[in-house]
Amino acid sequence: MPEPLADPEPGTHGGDADAEYAAVSAAFTAVADDLMQRGTKAGGAAQEVLEAAAMMAQDPSLADDVKERINAGTTGERAVFEAFVTFQDLLTGMGGYMAERATDLGDVSQRIIARLRGVAAPGIPESDEPFILVARDLAPADTALLDLAKVLALITRDGGPTSHTAILARSKSIPAIVGVVNALTIKEGTQVLADASIGVITIEPGRELLEDARARIASRAAALSAPITDGALADGTKIPLLANLGNPADAADAVALGAEGVGLFRTEFLFLDSKSAPTVADQQKKYTELLRHFAGKKVVVRALDAGADKPLSFLNDAHEENPALGLRGLRALRASEHILHDQLVALAAADAETEAELWVMAPMVSDSEESEYFVNLGRELGLTTVGVMAEVPSLALVADQVFDSADFVSIGTNDLTQYTMAADRMLGSVASFQDPWHPAVLRLVKMLGDAGAAVGKPVGICGEAAADPELAIVLVGLGATSLSMTPAALADVRAALRDVTLDQAKARAARALAARSAAGARAAAAGPVLD
Amino acid sequence: MPEPLADPEPGTHGGDADAEYAAVSAAFTAVADDLMQRGTKAGGAAQEVLEAAAMMAQDPSLADDVKERINAGTTGERAVFEAFVTFQDLLTGMGGYMAERATDLGDVSQRIIARLRGVAAPGIPESDEPFILVARDLAPADTALLDLAKVLALITRDGGPTSHTAILARSKSIPAIVGVVNALTIKEGTQVLADASIGVITIEPGRELLEDARARIASRAAALSAPITDGALADGTKIPLLANLGNPADAADAVALGAEGVGLFRTEFLFLDSKSAPTVADQQKKYTELLRHFAGKKVVVRALDAGADKPLSFLNDAHEENPALGLRGLRALRASEHILHDQLVALAAADAETEAELWVMAPMVSDSEESEYFVNLGRELGLTTVGVMAEVPSLALVADQVFDSADFVSIGTNDLTQYTMAADRMLGSVASFQDPWHPAVLRLVKMLGDAGAAVGKPVGICGEAAADPELAIVLVGLGATSLSMTPAALADVRAALRDVTLDQAKARAARALAARSAAGARAAAAGPVLD
Repeated sequence: MPEPLADPEPGTHGGDADAEYAAVSAAFTAVADDLMQRGTKAGGAAQEVLEAAAMMAQDPSLADDVKERINAGTTGERAVFEAFVTFQDLLTGMGGYMAERATDLGDVSQRIIARLRGVAAPGIPESDEPFILVARDLAPADTALLDLAKVLALITRDGGPTSHTAILARSKSIPAIVGVVNALTIKEGTQVLADASIGVITIEPGRELLEDARARIASRAAALSAPITDGALADGTKIPLLANLGNPADAADAVALGAEGVGLFRTEFLFLDSKSAPTVADQQKKYTELLRHFAGKKVVVRALDAGADKPLSFLNDAHEENPALGLRGLRALRASEHILHDQLVALAAADAETEAELWVMAPMVSDSEESEYFVNLGRELGLTTVGVMAEVPSLALVADQVFDSADFVSIGTNDLTQYTMAADRMLGSVASFQDPWHPAVLRLVKMLGDAGAAVGKPVGICGEAAADPELAIVLVGLGATSLSMTPAALADVRAALRDVTLDQAKARAARALAARSAAGARAAAAGPVLD
Repeated sequence: MPEPLADPEPGTHGGDADAEYAAVSAAFTAVADDLMQRGTKAGGAAQEVLEAAAMMAQDPSLADDVKERINAGTTGERAVFEAFVTFQDLLTGMGGYMAERATDLGDVSQRIIARLRGVAAPGIPESDEPFILVARDLAPADTALLDLAKVLALITRDGGPTSHTAILARSKSIPAIVGVVNALTIKEGTQVLADASIGVITIEPGRELLEDARARIASRAAALSAPITDGALADGTKIPLLANLGNPADAADAVALGAEGVGLFRTEFLFLDSKSAPTVADQQKKYTELLRHFAGKKVVVRALDAGADKPLSFLNDAHEENPALGLRGLRALRASEHILHDQLVALAAADAETEAELWVMAPMVSDSEESEYFVNLGRELGLTTVGVMAEVPSLALVADQVFDSADFVSIGTNDLTQYTMAADRMLGSVASFQDPWHPAVLRLVKMLGDAGAAVGKPVGICGEAAADPELAIVLVGLGATSLSMTPAALADVRAALRDVTLDQAKARAARALAARSAAGARAAAAGPVLD
C-alpha cells in the first residue's frame, strides 16, 4: 500500500478567498460523490462504511471551519488540513474508539487534499501484473472494488482466520494468510511465496522452494479436475456435500462445482441495503429464485442473522460494548417478532411454489426453550423441517434436550469456536485461539453428533471448518452427517473423504479428541500412517 | 433522578463580550476542577471517567468556539450550549458509539450552564431520608460519591445481575434489582417495595404486603445473628466458606463475618491507579498486609485480570470490538510477561514472610497448555500451590487435561456463564441469559467437579453464584469443595449448607442438571420436599 500524502505546508493564498473556497467546496463534493458511488457499486456493509465517510465530507461544521480559515488568508489545502486536524485532535483526546474514528476522518481529508492537488488518493494500488497484496487489514471499502482477478494472495497483519478478509478470500479462492505480525515490513516489489495451506510466507524464496511450490500447484490442479461425484467415504457412506451461499445469483456456480444442495443460505443480503425489512412478497421472490436451482435437493435457509458485526438499525440500534455477546441472531428476531414472522411466511410460500426440499434454521440458539419456540413458530407458519444452528456453547451442552424439538442441528464452527475459546474471531491478537481443531471445540461437536445419532436426526456442519479436508474427515468421525462449505472447497473435501472409511474417520476423531491443543489434534488425526 | 436543565434561549448579551467570556471561562474551569476533585476522591476507574469529562471542559477548541460566539454577541449560556451542540451533532452524525459520547459532552455542557445560572448540576439527588434509588444505570462516576448508607435499594433499567452496579450493591449489602425495563416510569416519591431475592418490585404495596415483608426482614435478621461456625453440611462434610476481596483493607471485616480464608483476592486495585505496573517492593508490601490477616488460613490470589471492562493502557492499549473476547487475563499477561513475572515474584516473597497458606491462580485460562505455562512459571518463581480459573468454556471441556498441571481450579461463574451463553454480563437486553442456574453452565461445573474428584484436587467457586444459598448447595452437589463470596453473603450460605447432607446436595444437583432452563433448574433443585 502506498505512502500517505505529505501534509500541506502553512501558507496564504493569492487573495481571492471566494475562488479558493470554491475549489475546496468542489473537492468536498467530488469526494463525497466518489465515496457514494463506490458505496452503491459495492453494496452491503461496504456501502454503509463508504456512505458514512461521504457524510463526513459533507459535514457543514467542517465546511464552515474551512471557509473561516480561507477567509483569514490560509490556502485551501492547508485550511482543509487544519480543520480536519482540529476535529481529529478532539477525537484523539477522547481516546479509544473515538481516536480510531479520527483515522477515518484522516482518510477523508487525504482524499480531499489529493483531489485539490490533482493526484490519486491513497488506497489499493492499481497494477497490470498479478500481485500479492500486503496490508494492515482490508476494510470492506477496500475490497469492495478490488480487481480480485489480479490478486494472487492476501497477506494482512490484522484479522483472524475467520475474519471477513479471510472469508472473502476463501469465497473467491484467493489464498490468504492473516495475522502476520511483521507483514508491514515486506517491501513493495519483494518476491514472496505464500503457502496458505500451512500459513507460511517465504521472502525471496530460492529456486528449489519455487520449483517445489510449482509442483504442488500442479498436483492440486489435477485433483481439481477429477470428475464430480456425490460426497461419500471409501466404504460408501454418503456424506452430502453442500454449498454455503449468500445470494441466489451464486447458485448456478455452486451447482457447477458439484454442490448437492445448500447447507447454509444466508438471508442477510435481503436486509442489509434497506432501512426497513423487505416485504413478504419481495422475500418470497428471492427465495423462489434460489429454490428453483435445487429441485429435488435440500436447501437449508438460515433466518436473518443480524447483530454483532452485521448490525441492522431496524432490528437492534442499541450500542453494545461486546456486540458478539449482544442481542443478535434469534434473540434479536424474537425481540422484533414481526420480522421473523414475515420471513418464515415468505419461506413457506416459496417452498409451496417450488420442488426443492426446504429446511429452515435459526441462528444463535442457546437452549431447548429457544429451539422449541422457533420450531413451533416455523411449523405454525407452514414449514416442514425446522432446526437450529449450534454456535452458542450452551446449545451443544444441552444437545440431548434440543433434539426433542429440532428436526436437525447445523454447527457454525466459527462462532462456536469464538465463544468456546472466548476469543473474538475478528481480532488478530487472539487469532491463535480461533482454531476449530481445538479439542474443546471438537468435544462439543461430539456431544452434538452423539445426541443426533441417539435420535437419528441430522447434524450438519456449515462453518468454515468443513472446508478443511483433514478436519472434514474428523468432523464426520464425530458424527457430522453432511458438510456445507464455500463451493470453491468442494473438490478438495470430496477427494479427501473418498480416502477414508467411517471407522477410520472415527479413529482419527478419537485421537483428535484426546489431543491437548489444536496443533496436537491436527497432528494426531493425521498419524499413525496405518489407521 | 432529576430532570435536565432547560436549554438556554437564543439572545444577546449587554455588549461586554470580555466580561461575558470571563464568566464562561470561570465556569469551564470550575467544572473541570470539580470533576477532577470528584475523580481524585473516587479513585480507580471512576477517576478515569471523571478526568475524561474534565478534559472535555478544558478543550481549547471548544473554548475558542464559545469565545467567537460571544464576540458575535451571543450570551455566554447560549454560546456554551451552541458550541457543545455543534460538536455533539458531529458525533451523533457519526452514529453508534460516537453518538453515545455526545451524551457525555451533554453532561459537561449541563454542568457549565448550571454553574453559570448558579443552580445545582443534575445528578443523584441529595436526600436526608433513606431512599430507593431508581436510575437508568449507575456509572462509576455516579456511585463513587454516593452516600450508600442512605440507599435502601437500587433499581436500574440497564445492567445484568453481574453488572458493576449489582456487584457494588452486593458488596455493600444493598439489595439491587437491575434490568427492569419500566424502571424509569417510577415517579419520584412513590412508595416501592423491592424484593431482590426474587427480583420483584411492587409499586404502592398494600398494608398486607408491607407486613409480610417486615416479617421476612425480621426472620432474616435472626439468621444473621446466629453464631459463626466453619462451613459444613448436615453430615459434617467440610465446605470452607471464603471471602472475595479486592483490597487488604477489607480483610478484617471479612474475618469478622466468619470468612475461613480468601477464595478470590483481586489484585487489580494495585494497578488501576497507575500509568505503569507497580514495583515488586510495592506489591510485596500489599500482599504481605493481606496475608498477615490470615495466618494458618488459605488465601487464593488471582494474578492481574486486566482487559475487557478493566483496561490497563500499559498492558493492552489496542481498541477491541469485543473486549470481553479480547486480549485479557492470562493472554494479556503472557504478552507482557515481565508484569506477570514481577507479580509472581512479589507474591512468593510475601508468602515467605507470612504464615498464611498462599495459593495463586491465573485468570482467563483456556486449556492445558496455558495452565502448564502458568503453573511452571509460578513454581520456578517460588510458589507452592498454583492453579487456574475456569471462566472460558474450553477449560471445563478439557478439565481432565488441565488437572495434569493445575493444583486446583476455581470457577468464575460470572464469566463462565457469559461465554457459555454468549451473552454479555453487562448488557440488559440479554440479562435473561446471564443466569448461572442454566443447566448448560451446571453441566460444565460438573465436568470440572468430576475431573477434580478423579485426581483428588480442589475445585472452588469464586463467582457470584456461590452467594446464592440454594445454588451454593447445588454447586457442592456438582463437586465444589469450597465456596468464596462477598463476605456479606457468608451467613446465609452457611445457614443453607447446614440443612443438607452431601447426598441430598447431589440429588438436588442431579435434578438441576436435567432441567431445561435456569428457572427450571432452580425449581427442580428445590423440590420434591422429601429429598
